[in-house]
Amino acid sequence: MRIVPGIHSVKETLKVRPKRISELWLREGTLSGELEVFFQEAMKGRIKIKRVAQQTLDKQVTSHQGVIAFVETGPEWPHPNELKKMDRGFFIALDSIEDPNNVGSIARSAWNLGCLGILTSKDRSAGVTPAAEKVASGGFEHVPVQEVSNLASELIGLKELGFWVYGLDGESTQSLVTTELSAKCVIVIGSEESGLRKPVSGACDALVSIPQATNSQSFNAAVAGAIVGYEFQRQRALTETSKISRKKL
Amino acid sequence: MRIVPGIHSVKETLKVRPKRISELWLREGTLSGELEVFFQEAMKGRIKIKRVAQQTLDKQVTSHQGVIAFVETGPEWPHPNELKKMDRGFFIALDSIEDPNNVGSIARSAWNLGCLGILTSKDRSAGVTPAAEKVASGGFEHVPVQEVSNLASELIGLKELGFWVYGLDGESTQSLVTTELSAKCVIVIGSEESGLRKPVSGACDALVSIPQATNSQSFNAAVAGAIVGYEFQRQRALTETSKISRKKL
Repeated sequence: MRIVPGIHSVKETLKVRPKRISELWLREGTLSGELEVFFQEAMKGRIKIKRVAQQTLDKQVTSHQGVIAFVETGPEWPHPNELKKMDRGFFIALDSIEDPNNVGSIARSAWNLGCLGILTSKDRSAGVTPAAEKVASGGFEHVPVQEVSNLASELIGLKELGFWVYGLDGESTQSLVTTELSAKCVIVIGSEESGLRKPVSGACDALVSIPQATNSQSFNAAVAGAIVGYEFQRQRALTETSKISRKKL
Repeated sequence: MRIVPGIHSVKETLKVRPKRISELWLREGTLSGELEVFFQEAMKGRIKIKRVAQQTLDKQVTSHQGVIAFVETGPEWPHPNELKKMDRGFFIALDSIEDPNNVGSIARSAWNLGCLGILTSKDRSAGVTPAAEKVASGGFEHVPVQEVSNLASELIGLKELGFWVYGLDGESTQSLVTTELSAKCVIVIGSEESGLRKPVSGACDALVSIPQATNSQSFNAAVAGAIVGYEFQRQRALTETSKISRKKL
């Protein structure tokens, strides 16, 4: 069960999969204009509405803006056959990203950038927490997430389906700026503290770095992921005129 | 007086302007390895150390990791004469960015990307709060900030010094991908809710958009700023071989 808090995120859930909302919680008392709209839409869609105290909402997640949706499912992970046939598209893989804000921010950017899906290492990354759902602003309604126990072997699986795997590594001398990214690829982002784990970087076809000022600290993980996703789509936009992945960009 | 909390941020302050730290607050009790290092360095640098209760730190800012530095100054805004002579470099201008996390995140990326400075609208933007200092991870030690009461007229002033002003606008049909950015420019970022205010967008030479999936919500302001900053440096790296702005990238 997904716990989706916040106005932007719940708005997107109501738009995309209203039938999968098992319950909508709204703060007790007079509703603001935005929350009143949710109430009306939920009534129309025969979604079960529960009016609860602020503290009850607070117990689920710190930041919720007075509304939480309980949602049964998210978007489905694409089938391997489909991935094999595909001629372009990119995934993002997260290795040990512990901050749910970063996971949520990546999902939001991934949606904007037409990303096929997000892989996360089950035991090492934050996963899709309610806080991440809030920050994603609806991103998790569009970008499927797969939590995997062995990220390196999943990357190898995607390589067999024709995807090229790029690991982000601030120490790499290969610059993103001069790298011609494969039309089918996976972008792997490691933790800001310790980077990619050995087996994960070992599974990468290439390690690339985003150019940065000397002696500056690393990019925030979510920002780095968005920059590489942008670079991927920039290269596609310049070389291809047809539709990109599943979505028009 | 700047209030700089958190391990990464204080580490950078101690490195860059230790003599401008008027006081260093450390949590009472046994110090972790990282905080112990701060203690030793502050002792060496004859910085006044105060051991305070967790609650005293909490009163200054929610997230501090046990350490807060009180700092007299930050980096200086570049002189107009210097800006006039300069042949490349970029500023970021923030119009109504209310979330301190976004302001801090932009400062961190701005540092990485060798940005010359950040302009913010005094009455409309979050400014450099302690929360922003924490998120910036040292960015505010390197990127000067100017809070201005009339952002539009400051932009016009920079235009007179040879800077080209680009406003980010998701509705614009001019794509960032096909825009040849001027070697001296200002990137203006508006609020996620309402975009750029009329006088601000009126002061822009061009409005550009980051390509994104249809019907997706806008990019997070801090992510959008980092993408355009990356694009600026990418174009410089391809067309110029000499050093970029003040820093080697």
